[in-house]
Amino acid sequence: MPLLRQDLATRRWTIIATERAKRPDDFIKQAGEPREAPAHVPTCPFCVGNEHMTPQPVYLVPDPASKDGKGWSVRVVPNKFPALVVPQHDSEARKRRHVGRYLEMDGCGQHEVVIESPDHSRTIATMSLEQVVRVVCTYRARFLELDRFDWNQLIIIFRNQGEVAGTSLLHPHSQIVGTPIVPQDIRCRLDEAQRYFDDNGTCVLCDVLDDELSEGTRVVASNAGFVAFCPFAAAVPYEIWIVPRRHASSFGVLTEEEADLLARILRDTLRRLYLLLSNPDYNYVIRSSPHQSAGEPHFHWYLEIQPRLATRAGFEIGSGMNVNVVAPEAAAAQLRGVSREGAVS
Amino acid sequence: MPLLRQDLATRRWTIIATERAKRPDDFIKQAGEPREAPAHVPTCPFCVGNEHMTPQPVYLVPDPASKDGKGWSVRVVPNKFPALVVPQHDSEARKRRHVGRYLEMDGCGQHEVVIESPDHSRTIATMSLEQVVRVVCTYRARFLELDRFDWNQLIIIFRNQGEVAGTSLLHPHSQIVGTPIVPQDIRCRLDEAQRYFDDNGTCVLCDVLDDELSEGTRVVASNAGFVAFCPFAAAVPYEIWIVPRRHASSFGVLTEEEADLLARILRDTLRRLYLLLSNPDYNYVIRSSPHQSAGEPHFHWYLEIQPRLATRAGFEIGSGMNVNVVAPEAAAAQLRGVSREGAVS
Repeated sequence: MPLLRQDLATRRWTIIATERAKRPDDFIKQAGEPREAPAHVPTCPFCVGNEHMTPQPVYLVPDPASKDGKGWSVRVVPNKFPALVVPQHDSEARKRRHVGRYLEMDGCGQHEVVIESPDHSRTIATMSLEQVVRVVCTYRARFLELDRFDWNQLIIIFRNQGEVAGTSLLHPHSQIVGTPIVPQDIRCRLDEAQRYFDDNGTCVLCDVLDDELSEGTRVVASNAGFVAFCPFAAAVPYEIWIVPRRHASSFGVLTEEEADLLARILRDTLRRLYLLLSNPDYNYVIRSSPHQSAGEPHFHWYLEIQPRLATRAGFEIGSGMNVNVVAPEAAAAQLRGVSREGAVS
Repeated sequence: MPLLRQDLATRRWTIIATERAKRPDDFIKQAGEPREAPAHVPTCPFCVGNEHMTPQPVYLVPDPASKDGKGWSVRVVPNKFPALVVPQHDSEARKRRHVGRYLEMDGCGQHEVVIESPDHSRTIATMSLEQVVRVVCTYRARFLELDRFDWNQLIIIFRNQGEVAGTSLLHPHSQIVGTPIVPQDIRCRLDEAQRYFDDNGTCVLCDVLDDELSEGTRVVASNAGFVAFCPFAAAVPYEIWIVPRRHASSFGVLTEEEADLLARILRDTLRRLYLLLSNPDYNYVIRSSPHQSAGEPHFHWYLEIQPRLATRAGFEIGSGMNVNVVAPEAAAAQLRGVSREGAVS
């Protein structure tokens, strides 16, 4: 019998239909070893030597090993084809126009690309820990920079790994977008979290974290700062949330120590996925509170990883509800069982 | 400058970023003629002669041309791998269980497959009009049957065309799922429609239809019963809504005459997509009111077509907001301009 499970934070139901279950091997597209890519590709706009192919960087982490001081290890550039553009003045990002009965506004905001490494062939799972720490610290630096401006009402940091996840460029990179509105989907999440707080006097994700740690079956990994677990009502196979132990609504308050711990658990978790499912396509996204609501007691930021192993079809579009064929307990057990020695170089 | 546009019915914003625009040709995966498939495939479970490969039919439209009276033209069978299953008793579909702090319930409901034609190679765009009328009448018959049971709180009729849209079986088919809950996404839509009705005393989709008809730039096709148009805040390139002129919240009240008119405009619209974009993958879904709310003055059923030309990536997952690179006015103009003579056989 399939099950319906409700996510406590969003109150969304997911159908867990394990009668249609698959084993990890069934999700692997190409048999054998994870694909190999060269470390440098002459035509890649993100590779070393091709810096002229992107706009001027807005942020740069120097390469500590660079002898002439010109090398970089992380590079942030404005997106060449931005979905949203920086306005001349903040007031532009607030103006709505009526078009008949409809509302329209200028596409103000900000859109940046974080080039995560000079090495074309790496991904978070296969980078050095030091490099992942640099990436996480860059996320925080750019989040804080974008959060200075009122036109960035919501800042979304995300990563598209692989073609199925929506990227055509293999070179490791993430994106940061600031949107001039708080989208309805986010407003619903905030409302549900507020309602839970009103009813219980506690943050829903703080409570979920306590329960997941004592229950244990869905935990994938943990350290002093973070817990990675497959959520009870996981919307897709092998979905993982990385939740900070310390309550904070905004990603921007991450400390140095927490940045290091986040990098460790993010790399560890993605290595487990990489090894279990042979370098699967995935998206991850950092869900943080909107601009000017950094102190909220009811909202708790976290990083959500969604592997792209299933196709969103008519049922999901029509109902807004997902069918997940892998129980989160089974996914977590498999991910816990991965031996991380050897294979990843 | 990109634009943000708000959908009046759902209040969701979409980013329309035509600076990243593509021409119709850029969306065509395989150059040249739409692919050809054989009319009969010996291993296809939906082909004539393989009826034993599916469960017993729950509904059948006989083939009027069949000499021995055994031929069928539409066949409905329970899904062999159902996402939700029919309960023994209605009360089972209401019970929630507490699992720690979480809620869980049995996956009750109903899941059927509508095999739309004995001919393996057809799709709605290339079927005869008579056959599409039979498919639409079958949708209505099964909708009314499923709507008799309280465990089907929401009935979703949908079609997945092509692999990118989530189907692995080429043989033309649709699906019908009854869910034991009204999902949150649908509840939000109903709430917004109710709010609009409270403010205006009118149905939001009735008003949108009036405006689209007088404005005209986004209309693709129309007849005495229906209007097909690209919505103002289309979430994906070439999104089309087919909206009945007569206000009705439930698809189940479709008259014989309306069934004929819906079949005509659905076939016409999908032929335009087929010809313009060379048989693109798409989903369509019939959005009807939940069980026991068939008389609502604020909700208006419609059929939504979402071509699968863009990939949902991290930004869409993180914000719940889409980036659409084709303005709906441009999409509608291209679709209107399609000559439907010749090519489709």
